[in-house]
Amino acid sequence: MRDIQSESDYREIHLDRVGVNGVRYPIRIKDRQDTFQHTNALINLYVNLPKEFRGTHMSRFIEILNRYQSDLSYSKLKNILIETKESLKANDAHIEILFAYFILKSSPVSNIQSYMDYTCQFIASQNDRFDFILEVNVPVQLVCPCSKEISRYGAHNQRGNAKIKTRMNGMVWIEELVQIAENAGSSPLFTLLKREDEKYITEHAYDHPKFVEDVVRDIALPLERDKRITWYQIEVLSQESIHNHNAYASVTKKR
Amino acid sequence: MRDIQSESDYREIHLDRVGVNGVRYPIRIKDRQDTFQHTNALINLYVNLPKEFRGTHMSRFIEILNRYQSDLSYSKLKNILIETKESLKANDAHIEILFAYFILKSSPVSNIQSYMDYTCQFIASQNDRFDFILEVNVPVQLVCPCSKEISRYGAHNQRGNAKIKTRMNGMVWIEELVQIAENAGSSPLFTLLKREDEKYITEHAYDHPKFVEDVVRDIALPLERDKRITWYQIEVLSQESIHNHNAYASVTKKR
Amino acid sequence: MRDIQSESDYREIHLDRVGVNGVRYPIRIKDRQDTFQHTNALINLYVNLPKEFRGTHMSRFIEILNRYQSDLSYSKLKNILIETKESLKANDAHIEILFAYFILKSSPVSNIQSYMDYTCQFIASQNDRFDFILEVNVPVQLVCPCSKEISRYGAHNQRGNAKIKTRMNGMVWIEELVQIAENAGSSPLFTLLKREDEKYITEHAYDHPKFVEDVVRDIALPLERDKRITWYQIEVLSQESIHNHNAYASVTKKR
Amino acid sequence: MRDIQSESDYREIHLDRVGVNGVRYPIRIKDRQDTFQHTNALINLYVNLPKEFRGTHMSRFIEILNRYQSDLSYSKLKNILIETKESLKANDAHIEILFAYFILKSSPVSNIQSYMDYTCQFIASQNDRFDFILEVNVPVQLVCPCSKEISRYGAHNQRGNAKIKTRMNGMVWIEELVQIAENAGSSPLFTLLKREDEKYITEHAYDHPKFVEDVVRDIALPLERDKRITWYQIEVLSQESIHNHNAYASVTKKR
Repeated sequence: MRDIQSESDYREIHLDRVGVNGVRYPIRIKDRQDTFQHTNALINLYVNLPKEFRGTHMSRFIEILNRYQSDLSYSKLKNILIETKESLKANDAHIEILFAYFILKSSPVSNIQSYMDYTCQFIASQNDRFDFILEVNVPVQLVCPCSKEISRYGAHNQRGNAKIKTRMNGMVWIEELVQIAENAGSSPLFTLLKREDEKYITEHAYDHPKFVEDVVRDIALPLERDKRITWYQIEVLSQESIHNHNAYASVTKKR
Repeated sequence: MRDIQSESDYREIHLDRVGVNGVRYPIRIKDRQDTFQHTNALINLYVNLPKEFRGTHMSRFIEILNRYQSDLSYSKLKNILIETKESLKANDAHIEILFAYFILKSSPVSNIQSYMDYTCQFIASQNDRFDFILEVNVPVQLVCPCSKEISRYGAHNQRGNAKIKTRMNGMVWIEELVQIAENAGSSPLFTLLKREDEKYITEHAYDHPKFVEDVVRDIALPLERDKRITWYQIEVLSQESIHNHNAYASVTKKR
Repeated sequence: MRDIQSESDYREIHLDRVGVNGVRYPIRIKDRQDTFQHTNALINLYVNLPKEFRGTHMSRFIEILNRYQSDLSYSKLKNILIETKESLKANDAHIEILFAYFILKSSPVSNIQSYMDYTCQFIASQNDRFDFILEVNVPVQLVCPCSKEISRYGAHNQRGNAKIKTRMNGMVWIEELVQIAENAGSSPLFTLLKREDEKYITEHAYDHPKFVEDVVRDIALPLERDKRITWYQIEVLSQESIHNHNAYASVTKKR
Repeated sequence: MRDIQSESDYREIHLDRVGVNGVRYPIRIKDRQDTFQHTNALINLYVNLPKEFRGTHMSRFIEILNRYQSDLSYSKLKNILIETKESLKANDAHIEILFAYFILKSSPVSNIQSYMDYTCQFIASQNDRFDFILEVNVPVQLVCPCSKEISRYGAHNQRGNAKIKTRMNGMVWIEELVQIAENAGSSPLFTLLKREDEKYITEHAYDHPKFVEDVVRDIALPLERDKRITWYQIEVLSQESIHNHNAYASVTKKR
């Protein structure tokens, strides 16, 4: 059968990325306890396409995902990308793995356990050098400092999302970024809370009012002090309970 | 050209609904001030398909939407469905029109105006008789009564959505259902608020704590008293600010 | 601490459903090979609320999910709902578990294996009796019979989704419904295909052109013959490649 | 009332962007015929926040949107951003306006008209200089060249999306980018087609098979020749009808 994809192209246009997008796959990832966590991922895997070739070979991307599906931990990403480059005869390879990551948390007073889900993403590229971005999304509660200050009682508050992306020169765990973000909000969120926990969280959150601007800065401070972090981007979105839109703040910094 | 859709079918299976789904269209709808509001809609239009026929003619649905696009108000729905039945030689026709509806609201203290969007839906069917359901989604703030009661200060609160569906024997305006839902929450939401408004809303909401269960019941009470309402369904979802999941309550009642 | 939820309510309005919505949880489900499949679920768990009580106790729902998280197979649903009823002192309990289910499939010619994801849902209720609906979503290819017939060559085709819901009086596996839907489309979908597979699928699909109406009926036929099926609902949506909207057909039948 | 937002901040962290996100608003935009098109938009409006200040004033963003809501055409963006900078005492302002844009199209043979929706975005920034990116999303049909070549008959095809972003040094209309993308696919899409149109499109598409790579390149070629274009990014996604995932290709180029 004719291999149209390998035929030569006359248009003289190099493509930055070609490949498969939105592959929903069951994967396993090593967590901080060095045990495997099973989860579902949405995966994009791309290579560059030199101007000489008409198309890429989409099935090879899936063959590689198949081989690594039982361990898609951070430590395997470089190998996947090198294998992808070789298989597709490309100079660059790029992968994005979006997944739900579950952490067993204890409630603050009653100490009962439940799983909280954090949407995470591995974003990695390989050409001559390897580049890796870890993305962690952490839901947090935000109590509005302005509302608290100007009101005789109460303060509007709401669920928000803190998205942290980092480049690192040493291992940083998802759990570490989660803790930084949860410390920066008015309160962390929990799946299971008894009433004594709810009382504690309500009062703690009211004692720590935060604008989206505050949460971004209070995440940035420990990242600034951390020698492993070489670049970060922080975006915080607050689903305002008094508006039908969101408040937003962000910062991006290379160190 | 052969008309395959009109050919006879041997499988002896009547289909309840066939047609077009997810048609994104610019429409106009009459509002309470009898002026036309321009908005965008997502439209489904279906008929039944008797077991004798293999398929329906999808283009005719679009031709009908085209004719009515400049006025898709409630009063035109019956005509659209009758025309659809005739055009497709069907016994039943059914339409769903999902659209953003904008209401110009004044903030509670400073009285400045801004538009709030309410996702609404017209759901109408015509066979021997005409059936119409009006759906209105109203974002509201909910202050948790339990959190307020057990905490020394503060109370977790959040944005929620109150969905009301009604069948009626007389005209009920979207604006009326919006007001019922906004009265039933701890506070309405606004797009534009100055600080004096934020103070008012914070205190007002704290003075009116509501569970999702309360909001459903406080919407149901005025619907129960309203002689125009013959059936209702109320669903309230609260995007809990202390959890990463929602609280939910609902009731459906024929009167 | 005062238990506000348990206090009496004066509004005389019984609520059909109250509880937790959108809980994202890691679960395990037994598959046809009797081995556990790990996946992620989005869970709703509700009870009714008699008119005498002001609210439900949201944390108890999560405690129950926690206990069953390691085995949320079909066979456990009745126990979960009975436990929920007892824990919340309710007459009705209702659960919805939406999850990605992965099946290892072999490509039609080269016989290489890859995982395909099928979005499934368990919908179960318990009052005096137990009710269970199995929902399976199966992506299929649809080649348009009209386009094939009227054109000198080619035929537009596209990805579609066949949603089957069934009530049963005997065990029906997800895999069985997947196979029925895949047989009813022009071709099944695969995550990994080599060129010989692509040739086979292209020709096979062209030889089996199907309208959405055909797919619904060709799913209904084997369900009609199956004595285990007591009720079914079939909805097929085709993401038309020549339109920016979808074609739709459905049937619901109690037997 | 104390103005907490204006108080000084000690954390020494400048924020790139703070403001409102996801404001759903009814807007009007001038189209190529110089008439106003009414549509709905989802708007983000941000400024930078110097390290000296604790927060921004969210209500001022909405006041500005209110003033420009009746004409949010391209020509007004610079004024909006300058006004936002002044109102918030900021150095940078940034706006993103995502909206559905409708074009009345004639079908290729029968010449009947219907509206097609194209999701567009204005992305504009103002600091010392003004930067503007026009984004247009164009649904197209893609017939797979490999499938056509290796199969005795038929060819799998599907709906895809071509996203074009451009920076320009002269006016480029949305309609121009739509036409470039529609020429680059195997066939444009239409909301309303009669059978003679469907025959034409089926044969035309089969005669013009395109990989995602081809569509990207065939969009890039006219952009390369256009002296008004100073930068472009093209991303094409094909919702493969034989897979449950997508094929993807992209290129970004500054000229």
